[in-house]
Amino acid sequence: MIISDYPIGVFDSGLGGLTVIKALREQFPNESIVYLGDTARVPYGNKSRTTVQKYSFEIAEFLLEKKVKAIVVACNTATALALDALEDRLPVPVLGVIQPGVKAAGIKTKKNRIGVIGTIATIQSGTYENQLKLINQELNVISQACPLLVPLAEDGWLKEKIVKDILTYYLDPLIKENIDTLILGCTHYPVFSTLMGDIVGADVTLIDSPAEVAIVLFDLLKEKNLLTKKNFLGKLDCFVTDETSSFPLIAERFLGYPVSNLYFTDISQN
Amino acid sequence: MIISDYPIGVFDSGLGGLTVIKALREQFPNESIVYLGDTARVPYGNKSRTTVQKYSFEIAEFLLEKKVKAIVVACNTATALALDALEDRLPVPVLGVIQPGVKAAGIKTKKNRIGVIGTIATIQSGTYENQLKLINQELNVISQACPLLVPLAEDGWLKEKIVKDILTYYLDPLIKENIDTLILGCTHYPVFSTLMGDIVGADVTLIDSPAEVAIVLFDLLKEKNLLTKKNFLGKLDCFVTDETSSFPLIAERFLGYPVSNLYFTDISQN
Repeated sequence: MIISDYPIGVFDSGLGGLTVIKALREQFPNESIVYLGDTARVPYGNKSRTTVQKYSFEIAEFLLEKKVKAIVVACNTATALALDALEDRLPVPVLGVIQPGVKAAGIKTKKNRIGVIGTIATIQSGTYENQLKLINQELNVISQACPLLVPLAEDGWLKEKIVKDILTYYLDPLIKENIDTLILGCTHYPVFSTLMGDIVGADVTLIDSPAEVAIVLFDLLKEKNLLTKKNFLGKLDCFVTDETSSFPLIAERFLGYPVSNLYFTDISQN
Repeated sequence: MIISDYPIGVFDSGLGGLTVIKALREQFPNESIVYLGDTARVPYGNKSRTTVQKYSFEIAEFLLEKKVKAIVVACNTATALALDALEDRLPVPVLGVIQPGVKAAGIKTKKNRIGVIGTIATIQSGTYENQLKLINQELNVISQACPLLVPLAEDGWLKEKIVKDILTYYLDPLIKENIDTLILGCTHYPVFSTLMGDIVGADVTLIDSPAEVAIVLFDLLKEKNLLTKKNFLGKLDCFVTDETSSFPLIAERFLGYPVSNLYFTDISQN
C-alpha cells in the first residue's frame, strides 16, 4: 500500500471528537480513518499539562502502530497543552483543532469581538487568545470556561430545559460583551450548536471547528501529496479505551449515524 | 511500629472522598490516614466494571506499600463495582461506603420508601437496591443517576441558582415518589447536602454516608484489635494522581479545612 492510502489518525479525550470525524467523512469520503477516543480517561479538560501530554503521546504511539499518514488532534485541550510537543516529536504531520477555528474567526468577525468557550484547561492555557492576537492585535477576545459541557455531552442529557439554562449561564457574559463571533473551542460542543445559536441570536456567527479542521486538513494533505487516490468509500475504525453499554448510542449522537466498527483497546498496556 | 499504629488507607476517584476523611478525623483523631484521590482518572461513574476494578487494584497496591492496616473504599462506584474483588484478594480488612449507608437507611425509614442517588455506574449496578432488599424485602427503593453532580462538585461551581435547578431536576422524581429517606450514594454529594435538604424538605432524612462509614469502621477496627493506642493527633497524607493549581482549594471544600500534606504520585508507574 502506498503512503497516501494509509489512514488518517484522529484522537480525542472521549467521543466528542467524532464531530470531527463527521466533518472529515463529508470532506473526504474516500480517506480511511482510525479514531481513538480515550473514554477511560475522559475528560481531559480539568487535567494538568503533564498528564495531557503523557496521554497524548500514548495515543499517538497507538495510532502510529496503525500506520497513519497524519494525525488530527480532535481535542482542544490536547491541542492547547500538547500540540507543540507532538509536532516536535512525531514523524507524521500533526494538525490541531485550534488554528483552523482561529483562522475562520479572524476572517468572519466584523466588530473584532470574539467569544471563546472551552474547558478549564483550554481557557487557562490562553492558546486561543494568543493565536487570535497573532492574526490581529486589534481583536478583543472574551473567554469563558464551561466545565460542565463535556460531561453533559458525554452523558447524553441533552433535551431538557436545564441544558438551555446551563448554556445560557455560560453564554450570557459573552453576549453582554457584545461578541459577534463565537468559537466553540471544544469538539464536544457542536451537539449543542442549535441551542447555542438560539441563545446568542442570529447576529453572532458560530465557528464550527470540525468543518474548519476538514478544510485545513485537505490543504495540508494536498500540499504533502498525501491525499488518497482511492475512489471508493474509506474505512472508519473507532477504538475506545473503555467500553460501556451506552457508547454506541453516545457515539451515534456525535457522529450522526451508527458506528459500525467500534473496538476496545487498552493503550496503557501498549 | 505495631500494626494497630499503622495508618488507615482511603481512596476515591477524586477529591470527593475527602468528605469521608473529614468524618474519620472527627471519629478517630489519633488515627493516621493515607488518602489517594485518583484525580488523573476522575470520574469513575461513567466507566466500566473492568476499568474500575483495574484502577482500584492499582490504588490498593499503592496503599499497601504505604503499610496501611485497613482500606476504606471512599467511592461508591468503586464499592459497587470492585469491593467484592478487593475483599477477596487484599490481605487487610476492606470497607466500602455502601453497606454503612444501607444499614442506616434501613433503620431510619418509617414509610419504607428510600431514594438513592449516585453515578450512572453505581445506580446501574443495582448494588444499593440489592443490599436494601437484603435487609428488608418490603423496602421500596427509587433510584436516580445524577451524572453531572461529580463534575459539578469537582469543578467547584457551587453557589449559583443553576446548581439548585440541577439538583431539583434530579430530586423531583424522588420527591414525587414520596420517599422519606434519601441516601447520598456518592462521596462527592455531601457538599450539596444543605441545598438538597432545602429541596427535599424536612420530612426526608438525608443519609450522610461518610458519618455512617466512620461508625462502622470504628466497630471493625475495634473487633480486629486494630484501633491505635496513640494518644496524639494522627497524620493525614493526601496523594493525588494528577495535580492542578486549583486542587488545594477544591480539597479544602470537601475536607472543610486546608490540606497540609498534599503530594503527587503516578500510580500507573508503580
